[in-house]
Amino acid sequence: MNSMSLFANLQENFQDPLTRLFIQLILIVLVARLCGRLVAKLHQPAVIGEMIAGILLGPSLLGWVCRPLLDFIFPSSSLGTLRLLSQIGVCLFMFVVGMELDVGQLKQQARTAVLVSQVSIVLPYLLGVASSLVLFSTLAGPHTTLLVFALFIGISMSITAFPVLARILEERGLTRTPLGSTAIVCAATGDVSAWSILALVVAMAKAKSLAFAALSIGSVVLFVLLMLFWIKPRLPFWMGQATHEGGVPGKGVTASVAIFVFASALATDLMGIHALFGSFLAGVVMPARGEFREFLRLRLENFSSVFLLPLFFAFTGLRTQIGLLNDTNGWLICLGLIFIATVGKLGGAMITARLTGVDWIDSFALGALMNTRGLVELIALNLGYDLGILSPRIFTMLVIMALATTCMTGPLLTFSDYLRARRVLGSKPQGEAALGTTPTIHQRPNP
Amino acid sequence: MNSMSLFANLQENFQDPLTRLFIQLILIVLVARLCGRLVAKLHQPAVIGEMIAGILLGPSLLGWVCRPLLDFIFPSSSLGTLRLLSQIGVCLFMFVVGMELDVGQLKQQARTAVLVSQVSIVLPYLLGVASSLVLFSTLAGPHTTLLVFALFIGISMSITAFPVLARILEERGLTRTPLGSTAIVCAATGDVSAWSILALVVAMAKAKSLAFAALSIGSVVLFVLLMLFWIKPRLPFWMGQATHEGGVPGKGVTASVAIFVFASALATDLMGIHALFGSFLAGVVMPARGEFREFLRLRLENFSSVFLLPLFFAFTGLRTQIGLLNDTNGWLICLGLIFIATVGKLGGAMITARLTGVDWIDSFALGALMNTRGLVELIALNLGYDLGILSPRIFTMLVIMALATTCMTGPLLTFSDYLRARRVLGSKPQGEAALGTTPTIHQRPNP
Repeated sequence: MNSMSLFANLQENFQDPLTRLFIQLILIVLVARLCGRLVAKLHQPAVIGEMIAGILLGPSLLGWVCRPLLDFIFPSSSLGTLRLLSQIGVCLFMFVVGMELDVGQLKQQARTAVLVSQVSIVLPYLLGVASSLVLFSTLAGPHTTLLVFALFIGISMSITAFPVLARILEERGLTRTPLGSTAIVCAATGDVSAWSILALVVAMAKAKSLAFAALSIGSVVLFVLLMLFWIKPRLPFWMGQATHEGGVPGKGVTASVAIFVFASALATDLMGIHALFGSFLAGVVMPARGEFREFLRLRLENFSSVFLLPLFFAFTGLRTQIGLLNDTNGWLICLGLIFIATVGKLGGAMITARLTGVDWIDSFALGALMNTRGLVELIALNLGYDLGILSPRIFTMLVIMALATTCMTGPLLTFSDYLRARRVLGSKPQGEAALGTTPTIHQRPNP
Repeated sequence: MNSMSLFANLQENFQDPLTRLFIQLILIVLVARLCGRLVAKLHQPAVIGEMIAGILLGPSLLGWVCRPLLDFIFPSSSLGTLRLLSQIGVCLFMFVVGMELDVGQLKQQARTAVLVSQVSIVLPYLLGVASSLVLFSTLAGPHTTLLVFALFIGISMSITAFPVLARILEERGLTRTPLGSTAIVCAATGDVSAWSILALVVAMAKAKSLAFAALSIGSVVLFVLLMLFWIKPRLPFWMGQATHEGGVPGKGVTASVAIFVFASALATDLMGIHALFGSFLAGVVMPARGEFREFLRLRLENFSSVFLLPLFFAFTGLRTQIGLLNDTNGWLICLGLIFIATVGKLGGAMITARLTGVDWIDSFALGALMNTRGLVELIALNLGYDLGILSPRIFTMLVIMALATTCMTGPLLTFSDYLRARRVLGSKPQGEAALGTTPTIHQRPNP
């Protein structure tokens, strides 16, 4: 045996799909972990590190440094499996996000939040639609119409990453403060609206005719009503003992829930919108009694967030080709998109909050929180890419926009803390004193 | 829109790999769950139901009843992903099995167990090798030699399903009895020997030349020594706080462990034996201090046993074609294999235990426990199939053998309980009274 044949033998081993998957998994989880740690030192949420990790492993860095290595680790034949795994991960993730949505709290605080959330959707939405008119001719994907493209760009401007927001609030100990709970409810109501519009856009993009789109939307509406008003009240009974206080769910319950989530995902998938809507809905209708949701979260979230979500980020990264923004023009458009997204979302939420009586600093903090786009934006963007609405170039721009707006949130919050501290210390200028008389979110009792 | 085009639209949706995967997941998890419940009513461990579920979903039942439906749900293009997912499941499962192996206890009880476990490997092994001489000409796979085939049939006769055994003991409340702990240690030492021989067989089957086989085995031995004596003592330090009493491991730890498991799996994979050996080894060297292993088990086992292992059973079932045993001859050989496996394993363990001073009834119970082959046998059989050692026909026979010997264990244990109860009631005949004077396993204090 000579070293050549040993090498040939090794190389043959590397061709095995399982071997390749192991290499991909190790690399992806490792890089995601390292980047997560790095950004944690900069007081950024781990999700930013994972987003960056995905981009580093894609053509933007790895492929730029050593293209053959990228092709070796992520050959196109392996992308199918990677996509499937990451989609399962996203569905499980959306299920957990759905479980975090407390419909009861949403109803309670609806009046406070509904205005802020709706304006903070409508404003960036309109700005997005307006800019899409300029961008359509050069940046639209191959299979789209101006209407769908405009609606989609609008959506991508107005998304708030509900789970990332929740994590930022938790890391800063703000979850139970009035600012925190207002932000959560705003983001949640916003999420529901945004996903509904997105479902509409997807149905329109996928359907071959208007009749199909109508059929698709009609069946989705029926399905949502069925889930919320017929299945949700009956689920605790079906799931039995496990959902009650003190009940210990066994493996059978995990299996039943898994079947339920997949079935719901399959239903929305077959109706012509994406499977992730169904998983999200399955999470929303999960029984909230006892420690049932916590039980499921522990078992599903850890696995999906450690194994499968990094795959999703990597998969997104493989599509993100920063090299495509190779001219000043491209970068200018990208900067423009970041600016429009921020003005629309942060500005819209801030001004509306101020108009409802919240002081300037808290309004600003609320706006900064609503501007977080994170993972949820990436999910939407991948949908747009898959449906041929987005070209690779604008996909890349929007990924950078998502990253930039998510990165902004931490520093902007710190800045608002600084402003608040300055005011408390009495160094506030005369002009702001008048605002201080308005009851701030921080002073109102937690409802 | 007419109903034809609606149907065409739906059918197109079904072609999507994600849609297909959802349908497969729902069906597999559902049927596994139903069968698991059904056999639980017959006081059989759930794993038997899952094994049966896999066979039902394969060509043996579903394909026999409605072949187009089988081809629709499991088209050959979807098998690659299914295989990868089930392999990941098996690796995670073997990791958990490795964690259950308590090396300390193994050393302590080694003297009691080593004889029983080795004889209960060697006897069925020799019987298997002997019968393989008869079977080789008609039933060997396309890419094998008599030596490899004989060694492999030997192995498949002598495997004990360590995890199934542990579950049966737990369900019957025997885990902490002397019978239970002897059985566990016997199965564990047996497992180590059986997997070592299997690794050898795989290396021989895969290597193109003797030099490659030697290189492969040499590097595996080096790797095992490295893991046990260099990495194992250092792991608690590397993993840090989390492995100590009262430490709460975060997501970072799960990620590190995941990387460790995949890296170890990749290492053994590249050395020319299967990835599952590496995952098993990774489990064995996990720090046992604190609640660290329990923490990992909770997060990994639930997911892998609910989602991924049923996929493995289904994948095995898709390869099991009971229709291939379409003649009396085939069924006779299959019965013969069940007989030889049982005589070798149950008989060998029973006689050796009796010779070491255990009474007949407990020796019989121990033998019955060692005869459980369950999931571990299926893993080995799939390896043999993949490597071209087994033809589809003998693969089917051995799957049935695994199922039959696993099903036997429960009733045989109940039978031994009955015998024991009869003796305690004083209704034993004269001949057995003499045996009663030997200290039984049940009477010895728990070491």
